[in-house]
Amino acid sequence: MNEIVAGIDVGGTNTLLGLVDEQGKIHADETIITTDYPEVTDFIKALAVSINKMLDAHENMTLIGIGIGAPNANFYKGTIELAANLTWKGLIPFADMVRKEIDVPVLMTNDANAAAMGEMIFGGARGMKNFIVLTLGTGLGSGIVINGQMLYGHTGFAGELGHSVIVPEGRDCGCGRKGCLETYASATGLVRTVLYLLSEKRGNSILRDIVPGELTSKMVAEAAANNDLLALEAMDYTADKLASGIVNALAFSSPEAVFLFGGLANAGDMLLEPVRKYVDMKVLPVFKNTFRIELSSIPENNAAILGASALVWNERSL
Amino acid sequence: MNEIVAGIDVGGTNTLLGLVDEQGKIHADETIITTDYPEVTDFIKALAVSINKMLDAHENMTLIGIGIGAPNANFYKGTIELAANLTWKGLIPFADMVRKEIDVPVLMTNDANAAAMGEMIFGGARGMKNFIVLTLGTGLGSGIVINGQMLYGHTGFAGELGHSVIVPEGRDCGCGRKGCLETYASATGLVRTVLYLLSEKRGNSILRDIVPGELTSKMVAEAAANNDLLALEAMDYTADKLASGIVNALAFSSPEAVFLFGGLANAGDMLLEPVRKYVDMKVLPVFKNTFRIELSSIPENNAAILGASALVWNERSL
Repeated sequence: MNEIVAGIDVGGTNTLLGLVDEQGKIHADETIITTDYPEVTDFIKALAVSINKMLDAHENMTLIGIGIGAPNANFYKGTIELAANLTWKGLIPFADMVRKEIDVPVLMTNDANAAAMGEMIFGGARGMKNFIVLTLGTGLGSGIVINGQMLYGHTGFAGELGHSVIVPEGRDCGCGRKGCLETYASATGLVRTVLYLLSEKRGNSILRDIVPGELTSKMVAEAAANNDLLALEAMDYTADKLASGIVNALAFSSPEAVFLFGGLANAGDMLLEPVRKYVDMKVLPVFKNTFRIELSSIPENNAAILGASALVWNERSL
Repeated sequence: MNEIVAGIDVGGTNTLLGLVDEQGKIHADETIITTDYPEVTDFIKALAVSINKMLDAHENMTLIGIGIGAPNANFYKGTIELAANLTWKGLIPFADMVRKEIDVPVLMTNDANAAAMGEMIFGGARGMKNFIVLTLGTGLGSGIVINGQMLYGHTGFAGELGHSVIVPEGRDCGCGRKGCLETYASATGLVRTVLYLLSEKRGNSILRDIVPGELTSKMVAEAAANNDLLALEAMDYTADKLASGIVNALAFSSPEAVFLFGGLANAGDMLLEPVRKYVDMKVLPVFKNTFRIELSSIPENNAAILGASALVWNERSL
């Protein structure tokens, strides 16, 4: 019998599931429409049905555990709490509920930690004991590994680098404070930077012809790829601010590498090169040339499932 | 035979040594004038003579290890590198050199990490798995414990919170950059804040009568204790900036407690109360009421020796 892990990524709109082997190969996958289930009990029953269906089609495989990435998931308690993007409210004992349907070990954590775990088990961080993954999506999430262990902290919620303040009295943040890293270094942060530069600069830009409410980070990256000067400046500004967050993180935990992942990281070298340049300019001298900054090597479309399954594979390898 | 550890705190001017038992009782102590030894080999011979002298006076005790706190010490390598406050230059294989004189396990780390280790083994952090000690002296050092382990990172130099940038383009820092936390939240930072406020404000203050080059943080704390308004404002300003550094650290590692230690922490509640107030105002909501901010409970005059010895006692307790 071949051992297999179910990786589940619970999203506000869609939930992805897959059967992942120890080498990171996905043998089956399914999608559930999260919003079809206003009641979390029904959702969990649907999850179990999907997992069992995939297992039925792979009779030579034994399920050894379930790994789950979900918004605001608490690793210690196996709960989801106050997740803004999910319709289920209150404190949900999610892992226990899944275990009642399928009796195997169930581990869960938030999306960014799952991404970091995926990087450690299947990606560019293999063999590393100290690294950080920054997920540059709508917000900025972070998964931090120290001494080979995911950093959860006293509360289970450690690793909120998106909410380290890098500009005192800076941009309004969804957390109610000002100047958080994610208000600059994220897909939405990039769009805000374009609007700021449109107000400051006089030059032509294709981005002047787009309704602000419809502007996306992808449009900005495309404009930058076409040498639109304002878009290029927005990428540079974003990289500068991201570098400020990264050098403070380097001073905290002195990692071997920082990996960039998610929507904004799809801009590739257009983001990576200026980030490296600014980090090199800003880093504390003692840490110069002690770390690498890389794009994640996990394919984005599989990352969520792989990362979730890696939670379980990681426990097996300890 | 009772087991005993030698704790050594190597300072630029004086080096303190003591024999410390498992309960943190200091059975003997000595002081060596560091500057009397321009050659590190002679210094280490003097250390060995002192340790052996103390052991000779305590025949019922067995030395099980030597713990050393020293500027720029690298835990992994047992070396001292490029320490600005020491006369010995280059890369010194300090732990190996000590071990050649006295053949027991020798562990070393920097002063701030030793303080954190002392807090964990003998002080207010007993039983805690996640906490941070900030040493507020001439600069700001930090010792960070995560999952019960001292944070050294990939390089051995992790935990440089004094050099997290909290004010972009802020005050010049000795590291060559600008706006580092220690330029505000340290003994020298407090003095700089007084000079800044003397330039900004018009009110009377006893601090106007002191030559700037002779102004010390102790004078400022005393003036504040006497209700000098400018001195009080300087304490408040310092607390505000320290809180900015603390809330970013909370977002990173979500510790159970942050301990304040060293010269500036001697101001006691005059510093602690405004720090707590500002941290409460600035902290990310998810971390509200999940941590404590306390003064260190280790007596300052013994802290260096206790902390250094705790390096060894910690290994024994694993």
